[in-house]
Amino acid sequence: MTSIAGGPCAAVIGLGSMGIGMAQSLQRAGFTVSGYDVSPAAVARFAESGGVVGSTPAQAASGADCVVSVVVNAAQTEAVLFGPDGCADSLPQGAVFVSSATMAPEAARGLAARLERTGRLYLDAPMSGGAGRAADGSLTMMASGSVAAFERAQPALDAMTGTLHRLGDAAGLGSAFKMVNQLLAGVHIAAACEAIAFAARQGLDLARVYEVITQSAGNSWMFENRVPHVLAGDYRPKSAVSIFTKDLGIVMDMARDLRFPVPVAGAALQMYLMTAAAGMAQDDDASVARLYAQIAGLTLPAET
Amino acid sequence: MTSIAGGPCAAVIGLGSMGIGMAQSLQRAGFTVSGYDVSPAAVARFAESGGVVGSTPAQAASGADCVVSVVVNAAQTEAVLFGPDGCADSLPQGAVFVSSATMAPEAARGLAARLERTGRLYLDAPMSGGAGRAADGSLTMMASGSVAAFERAQPALDAMTGTLHRLGDAAGLGSAFKMVNQLLAGVHIAAACEAIAFAARQGLDLARVYEVITQSAGNSWMFENRVPHVLAGDYRPKSAVSIFTKDLGIVMDMARDLRFPVPVAGAALQMYLMTAAAGMAQDDDASVARLYAQIAGLTLPAET
Repeated sequence: MTSIAGGPCAAVIGLGSMGIGMAQSLQRAGFTVSGYDVSPAAVARFAESGGVVGSTPAQAASGADCVVSVVVNAAQTEAVLFGPDGCADSLPQGAVFVSSATMAPEAARGLAARLERTGRLYLDAPMSGGAGRAADGSLTMMASGSVAAFERAQPALDAMTGTLHRLGDAAGLGSAFKMVNQLLAGVHIAAACEAIAFAARQGLDLARVYEVITQSAGNSWMFENRVPHVLAGDYRPKSAVSIFTKDLGIVMDMARDLRFPVPVAGAALQMYLMTAAAGMAQDDDASVARLYAQIAGLTLPAET
Repeated sequence: MTSIAGGPCAAVIGLGSMGIGMAQSLQRAGFTVSGYDVSPAAVARFAESGGVVGSTPAQAASGADCVVSVVVNAAQTEAVLFGPDGCADSLPQGAVFVSSATMAPEAARGLAARLERTGRLYLDAPMSGGAGRAADGSLTMMASGSVAAFERAQPALDAMTGTLHRLGDAAGLGSAFKMVNQLLAGVHIAAACEAIAFAARQGLDLARVYEVITQSAGNSWMFENRVPHVLAGDYRPKSAVSIFTKDLGIVMDMARDLRFPVPVAGAALQMYLMTAAAGMAQDDDASVARLYAQIAGLTLPAET
């Protein structure tokens, strides 16, 4: 990749709803952005918005100051770095790899150590915030890594984030904070779905329940954000059930390794698994409410 | 009870941390307030603040336009109304009984029907908000009852509440909304405690976890409100563990009667029961975090 007019170059690997927005935020900030995705449709959309298409992660990352990896998990991140077409070797010495996938801290530490042995930098930078905030450059990132990694990534971070939490000088801390957040987020969505279906079972006016709860001590960020999907009967995936079978699965694995009990998160995970098992894995995570309704023979609002 | 200068008269039955504040809010609004509590200490505190002490609920309620019952559950509410010293008979015809205890909707419907047969009014009005909001007259109430009950109670409600949700014209609806709130509140406190202890197990800086989570999608009203108790090591009861063994117990009973599964709330209830069983029933509900710490051999912040 060559910069237009000598400006900064970034690569974005993974051009889904989050990655494409982050790429566009980088472009707006003056970066020449090269991108890669396994999906031809995602690549085409990126090319339309003026992106430079790489045919492999290695090609996309060649010559970049910063590679932002926006894939799903640790295994995909490992493939992006060290797979047959991985970018670890093509990334210039001293450039930084910003990893935003949700993964166990141990996995982040392993990938960072392996990459840094080759003379590149690694930033452990999982994120919070949806596609809208990716597109307007106001994501929250929970980041940790060396001072050098932060320095090299700073212009790209400035372009993509509204809030950057600098959580320490070693990979793993960003991921640890993210997993605490995911434990809570996963429980809160399941609880929101349980509560709104419990309200439906009692015949309550669900719009009124939403209004009262969002003003009360029972409120959560997730209740406020997800229950409107139930009220609208709209289960198109803003964030899919499969994200939480994955993320609460990571929490369970971590907790078991640490010999630490997480029974509330465990109950929530079972609800996502039931919802996925009932055929809704790729639907919006508010579908957990549909699972309760299905079990109890309730009618929730239908999409109008 | 006789009004000073012919103004409105109210009685408050139950002068704990909530009831005393509500009584003072009524006094500030010009009510002559008579009160009763089983605890001599609570009665003495009320007398010091200028309240008229009744020696029984019946005596306190005699001549009142409105009786506000601030006791713990349905059984106590029934005793306040229909027990040997109960106030149902001494309450003037057409006066209103405002019941703020958390109880199953079915219990509220039963008490309302029984009282209204005698010519008095019943308002099903459970509340949300702590002692501070009781004292400054800004509670939230989730209320339902007849138009006549609302009308008769309105001046007292104006004195005590910041937000009054009018949820319908029959007793039971207020309680139904409250139980949906309690399901969520109970799960969120248990999840907050599970998450902060999970963070401690990983050796994270807990103050930083609080700062990051309260700005992220994993936040809840309860996380924001209760985790500071853990950070301060202060488990003096603002709201005790025993409140949630009770309230999630009511949720479980209701759900079983409705043949509706609530596995996430069920897991949370077990954590409150474990915490109570470990000797912390009368401590602050953030003590669930201490239970996790005890199990896992962790050290949480100590009170300074």
